[in-house]
Amino acid sequence: MSGWLAGLDGGGTRSTLVVAAPDGRRWRCEGPAGLVDPRAPEAAAHQLATWIRTALADLGAPIPLAALCAGLAGVGHEAERRRVEVALAAAGVAERVEVVTDGWIALEGALGPEPGVLLVAGTGSVAYGRDARGRVARCGGWGLTIGDEGSAYWVAREGWRAALRAHDGRGPATVLGEALRAAVELPDLAAAPSWIGRASKREVAALAPVVVRVAAAGDAVADAVLTAAAAELALHAQALGQRLDWDREPVPVAVVGGFGTQPEVRQRLSACLSRLGPPAFALVEPRADAASAALERARRLAEG
Amino acid sequence: MSGWLAGLDGGGTRSTLVVAAPDGRRWRCEGPAGLVDPRAPEAAAHQLATWIRTALADLGAPIPLAALCAGLAGVGHEAERRRVEVALAAAGVAERVEVVTDGWIALEGALGPEPGVLLVAGTGSVAYGRDARGRVARCGGWGLTIGDEGSAYWVAREGWRAALRAHDGRGPATVLGEALRAAVELPDLAAAPSWIGRASKREVAALAPVVVRVAAAGDAVADAVLTAAAAELALHAQALGQRLDWDREPVPVAVVGGFGTQPEVRQRLSACLSRLGPPAFALVEPRADAASAALERARRLAEG
Repeated sequence: MSGWLAGLDGGGTRSTLVVAAPDGRRWRCEGPAGLVDPRAPEAAAHQLATWIRTALADLGAPIPLAALCAGLAGVGHEAERRRVEVALAAAGVAERVEVVTDGWIALEGALGPEPGVLLVAGTGSVAYGRDARGRVARCGGWGLTIGDEGSAYWVAREGWRAALRAHDGRGPATVLGEALRAAVELPDLAAAPSWIGRASKREVAALAPVVVRVAAAGDAVADAVLTAAAAELALHAQALGQRLDWDREPVPVAVVGGFGTQPEVRQRLSACLSRLGPPAFALVEPRADAASAALERARRLAEG
Repeated sequence: MSGWLAGLDGGGTRSTLVVAAPDGRRWRCEGPAGLVDPRAPEAAAHQLATWIRTALADLGAPIPLAALCAGLAGVGHEAERRRVEVALAAAGVAERVEVVTDGWIALEGALGPEPGVLLVAGTGSVAYGRDARGRVARCGGWGLTIGDEGSAYWVAREGWRAALRAHDGRGPATVLGEALRAAVELPDLAAAPSWIGRASKREVAALAPVVVRVAAAGDAVADAVLTAAAAELALHAQALGQRLDWDREPVPVAVVGGFGTQPEVRQRLSACLSRLGPPAFALVEPRADAASAALERARRLAEG
């Protein structure tokens, strides 16, 4: 059987849809968050279906598609996953619909069927592991206020903290304060609390490159923030390493996300991982992205 | 000259007004925040004047009073301080009006005219110091997201973080997660991020006593959070100790605020302070509260 297929990677801040025509042409488009509120799973399904319909119409793709696989955030419980799946199918965007967790397609994309650990480090952070027995576990991803250690948001916030500690004489001197202040055009460092009160979490996270730049210029405090971030990310892998069963070492670790894939972060992470074990870990390149993994699963769904 | 007087302690979350009649009777009432938005100082003055008028009418006090001294948050710059003072005087609640910073009246209340350090540890945290030459300095108080280390909010947030790290296997085991979960009636620990997303900062801070209780019951992780909070508070004193000039030691340190004055916190703080120096520090009892210090200043204003 052949037909039009789509894979959806629904993240907490935005979604990616990959559409494939039977002749092999592919399109990729970005859309709204694919985060399911467990109190109203059908609402998320409805919103996604509306967006998918528009995207398919723009491409001239037929509706319904032969198959759609959607990896979504917030469907960790089977009951919610099933409700979203039923609602998406009822919306008529595809003849066959499957809903899986965003973690599953992320793992599948990055590592294929192999055991390993996936570190996601963008605005937030989370890690997934799949062991030799096929068991999947998650670590971190508890939100930016009480979790998501080692993420871009975390790095920017720790950068501000270090700057203010230096200003007070509670911590070592750093040029972070001046760099962060200039980046958001504040009149002085004392305006930082009110800026952070107004800024969105993505605006805060967008300052992580300032910390990277200041560290690269030789600032020891900024360097320490980045090294702490890498250690936090590595700790996710270590915890998963101990919670799952591995039949061989080193355990592959793939990193995705706009922050974790920067060379300065990757380098530090590699150093942190090399000090861990057992099990030992080794950084590997991700095979594909999550939306492509969802598309691959849609293909199997259409063929099954 | 005698007459009716009032002192106002305008904090970031609520205000306290102390009113004194010429015959020595005194009343104390609580009202809305006395935080001045630097972009609109007159708006804060107007809101405070309205509240003060109502409070005075309830007491049967004459309007205008002979004098009012208001210590307000957010008037660190002279231009804003002056604008609020002019607007409060124009509102006609008192014949003589003086506006000073909340830090000044807090210091004056806790230490009188003596040099020393005042640690404020409630929902948030901040420290003020006044040295032998009369110079005043501030340390911390940068807001709950990037500052206010050692406050009730900070302790509760670190408690959640430690609980989630334990849950993931990223940190040592603790019963903090179960205690915090039960305190806010969550179905499981995975509901913590959405709870913290909905909760106000005061609701988060209200969990600090849970951390204190779990620590008292022997939980090493909760104990470490409290010890870290005390160390953070002591660091404020240490920084002020180095930024100001002292003509004698030990430098007195007064602690005010609902969190810092708890025996379990005070004990740990005392231990942290005893390891600092030079200069050496010693905990002392606050002489009076900030609103009483403002009232005393109003008295001098009426007599001057």
